[in-house]
Amino acid sequence: MAKATRRLAKKTYQARATLLREQLVQLQLQLKKAPFKVLLILAGPEGAGRGNLLNTLAEWLDPRGVDTFSYHPPTENEQAHPHQWRFWRSLPAMGRIGLYAGSWYTETLREEARNKRALSHCADEAERIRHFERLLADSGTLIIKVWLHLSKDAQGRRLRTLRADPATAWRVTEEDWHHHQSYDRLAQTAELIRAKTDCPGARWTLIDAEDERARDLKVGQLLLTQFRRQQRRFARLSPLGAPGPAQPLRPSGRRRLRALPLDQDLAEKDYATLREKWLGRLSRAVREALAADRSIILVFEGWDAAGKGGAIRRLTSAIDPRDYRVIPVAKPSDEEKHAHYLWRFWRDIPRNGRVTVFDRSWYGRVLVERLEGFCREDEWKRSFSEINDFERALADHGTIVLKYWLQVSHAEQLRRFREREVTPHKRHKLNAEDWRNRRKRADYEVAVGDMIALTDPPHAPWHLVPADNKRFARIEVLRAASRHLEAALAT
Amino acid sequence: MAKATRRLAKKTYQARATLLREQLVQLQLQLKKAPFKVLLILAGPEGAGRGNLLNTLAEWLDPRGVDTFSYHPPTENEQAHPHQWRFWRSLPAMGRIGLYAGSWYTETLREEARNKRALSHCADEAERIRHFERLLADSGTLIIKVWLHLSKDAQGRRLRTLRADPATAWRVTEEDWHHHQSYDRLAQTAELIRAKTDCPGARWTLIDAEDERARDLKVGQLLLTQFRRQQRRFARLSPLGAPGPAQPLRPSGRRRLRALPLDQDLAEKDYATLREKWLGRLSRAVREALAADRSIILVFEGWDAAGKGGAIRRLTSAIDPRDYRVIPVAKPSDEEKHAHYLWRFWRDIPRNGRVTVFDRSWYGRVLVERLEGFCREDEWKRSFSEINDFERALADHGTIVLKYWLQVSHAEQLRRFREREVTPHKRHKLNAEDWRNRRKRADYEVAVGDMIALTDPPHAPWHLVPADNKRFARIEVLRAASRHLEAALAT
Repeated sequence: MAKATRRLAKKTYQARATLLREQLVQLQLQLKKAPFKVLLILAGPEGAGRGNLLNTLAEWLDPRGVDTFSYHPPTENEQAHPHQWRFWRSLPAMGRIGLYAGSWYTETLREEARNKRALSHCADEAERIRHFERLLADSGTLIIKVWLHLSKDAQGRRLRTLRADPATAWRVTEEDWHHHQSYDRLAQTAELIRAKTDCPGARWTLIDAEDERARDLKVGQLLLTQFRRQQRRFARLSPLGAPGPAQPLRPSGRRRLRALPLDQDLAEKDYATLREKWLGRLSRAVREALAADRSIILVFEGWDAAGKGGAIRRLTSAIDPRDYRVIPVAKPSDEEKHAHYLWRFWRDIPRNGRVTVFDRSWYGRVLVERLEGFCREDEWKRSFSEINDFERALADHGTIVLKYWLQVSHAEQLRRFREREVTPHKRHKLNAEDWRNRRKRADYEVAVGDMIALTDPPHAPWHLVPADNKRFARIEVLRAASRHLEAALAT
Repeated sequence: MAKATRRLAKKTYQARATLLREQLVQLQLQLKKAPFKVLLILAGPEGAGRGNLLNTLAEWLDPRGVDTFSYHPPTENEQAHPHQWRFWRSLPAMGRIGLYAGSWYTETLREEARNKRALSHCADEAERIRHFERLLADSGTLIIKVWLHLSKDAQGRRLRTLRADPATAWRVTEEDWHHHQSYDRLAQTAELIRAKTDCPGARWTLIDAEDERARDLKVGQLLLTQFRRQQRRFARLSPLGAPGPAQPLRPSGRRRLRALPLDQDLAEKDYATLREKWLGRLSRAVREALAADRSIILVFEGWDAAGKGGAIRRLTSAIDPRDYRVIPVAKPSDEEKHAHYLWRFWRDIPRNGRVTVFDRSWYGRVLVERLEGFCREDEWKRSFSEINDFERALADHGTIVLKYWLQVSHAEQLRRFREREVTPHKRHKLNAEDWRNRRKRADYEVAVGDMIALTDPPHAPWHLVPADNKRFARIEVLRAASRHLEAALAT
């Protein structure tokens, strides 16, 4: 038979809560200036009191520093994006606490993993969650995951007590009873998922939820302890420094880049004919892809003055203006600088049936950020696999991804810089930074080489475009896009 | 018979375009620091070349200062929000240009206003648009609306020429021919809508679109001219100044506030009973409203330390955590400060089936912003009707809106301030500004009085809550919400 555990006395609770609240207020003051954010994820069976706990935390914490999240099943719009999209969109900003009453666990925890197929689905989900949390933890996010444990007996007692009192009977729904009946199977799934997602930087803590007062104090205490540990971790990190000359990780990329012939020519008349031909073919391929509810991402990277803008304008003239967006990627805003480097790109991922063209992209991480020392070496080195994971997630969703590198010679770039200098309406396109980057050509060649060698999977390949001749480059861009789309549609 | 008009010679075009581009680059540099934004709305029949014009403008302008918008028919999520929601979400930031290939006109322009019903629908739409544009124009947004005129003959010629060349035939779709056939009727609707929305601050300019070169130059030139006029307008504006003592616009509000009895009492035991009773009733009413796909907005305003936070936490304990969000409204961020004062609230408007609780709200406009001189007198005076329009739009969509003012006496407020001072975990809730506001009680009473007198429509009423006794106030909040929801559901 079940017996109720002893409850923490109200007086003891109040004394401890008062102390804890003082410390939490201090925590929030420090967190405001800290270089990280905190995610507090609450999960557990019905009746474990996530709602009440949330209310307690809302009272203890200054609400201006807290974002509370919970999730309904994905909407039509969310389903039209890669699975992680909605979670990327609901992360707190730096220096804030995200309270998750529901989370990326909610959907999976609701299922009963009874058979092999369900079990393997569970495992896939857990794998996806592990990736996501590792990415966040690696970037310094403090992830605290709490499993509120409540035995089946205790759950039954809690539901029956509530039902017995007419004043509280409304709190108990049909669904609660249903969950009570499936308690054991749900607990099994939960255990499986917890085991598979209990990783460094994202550990589960089991907290007994039967005594509500003790439960709330324990969660508050856990928040404090973990926060302090995270502070110490950050205190030990070495500061950013200016990096030395770039050393290639994978020299084959730079060789491939250098081997690219740049002496193509294309007469104006031939250009006009080819342009209409490939625009027509591209237009058809895009319309077919969008009609099939696929989404398309085109990434443009290349040397300064390589002609990205012009190539993009020709390309987009083949697409219905309602169907595409061009995202010019400039230096990150303050908000973006304080978020994960992939965060701002997730925001602009197209929904099914739409195209996003990125004029520069997340590859800034392994180019300018690497070479200017805007991130630590371990960070940009890790980025290659993070970017591969990111593009894998896009491809898994069905997004067609193509990436261009527009290659111009050092001499042609100089000619274009000079031209910009003397053309009044182009002068604003050229600044001191462009000249600075130009002087760093050797370092950039190393970084670009590593990039095209390390992030070139078949589902998101790099297309290297010889771009000394603008006309040739523009046709090449149209041709590559058409063929890539046609191939993607044929499979 | 139609005759083709003479085209602008390529050489002339290039000379003028070069000059124009220099000026546009200058414009963007100045706009960056200007206290306003620019909306350039392009509309016109198929074939008038919105797409090409957009591409030209994308080439002429620095894309980093431009946001391009166009709209598909509203998604399920957009339909679950008030009509204007998606347009509020796609406004450029201060100092930027929004290029609208589609806009709030697109849906309406697509319809043929053949019969009385369609005509009256058109008129309603036009009214809505007029309100929206006036609001933006009043706040300093430069709105440039271009109607690209193309005669039926010219449209036919353009389509036939494109079709005749195999290289360009793909540009002409079935839909284009369909639009060509309905040219006259569509033109009639367009004329009607233009006439009804040609207002000060949001005038239409007709530009002949037959000669593409002349068209592009004219649009660029228009942008320049209008921008300079707007600059002059802003140069004439008087700077913000500290306002004198507040004078009531409508003294009845303050009288109502002062007449509120604040000496209620409620024993702890009675409170517990009443709380469960009203929580139950509220929970049921909320669930019914959400099941009926209504959305709910609850606004909490009140003196500092009036107990808004506590009242909100009790109230939300009756709602499924997945169904509500509490938005604590602090000082606007830099981004928010530069946007229209309603912008950040539009962002958090709930979709159908959801609840948003605003802990402080858009009423800051007529309280702190009025009294601290954060906006000009004409601005806060205009806000009363803008806020009424805003809440009218919510109500028209079916959102249930209830607003609370929590009233505490000057003496009780002092007692609570003192208590906060001596309680470590509450000390952070009290700052110098609270004391400053307290000294301005008389001014605030005037502003609050005007607010409750001037923004109290039946579809978004103020409920004044005597809040010297916290228990009484919390029950009162639950009771008012329950009754308001029940009444809204009964109609």
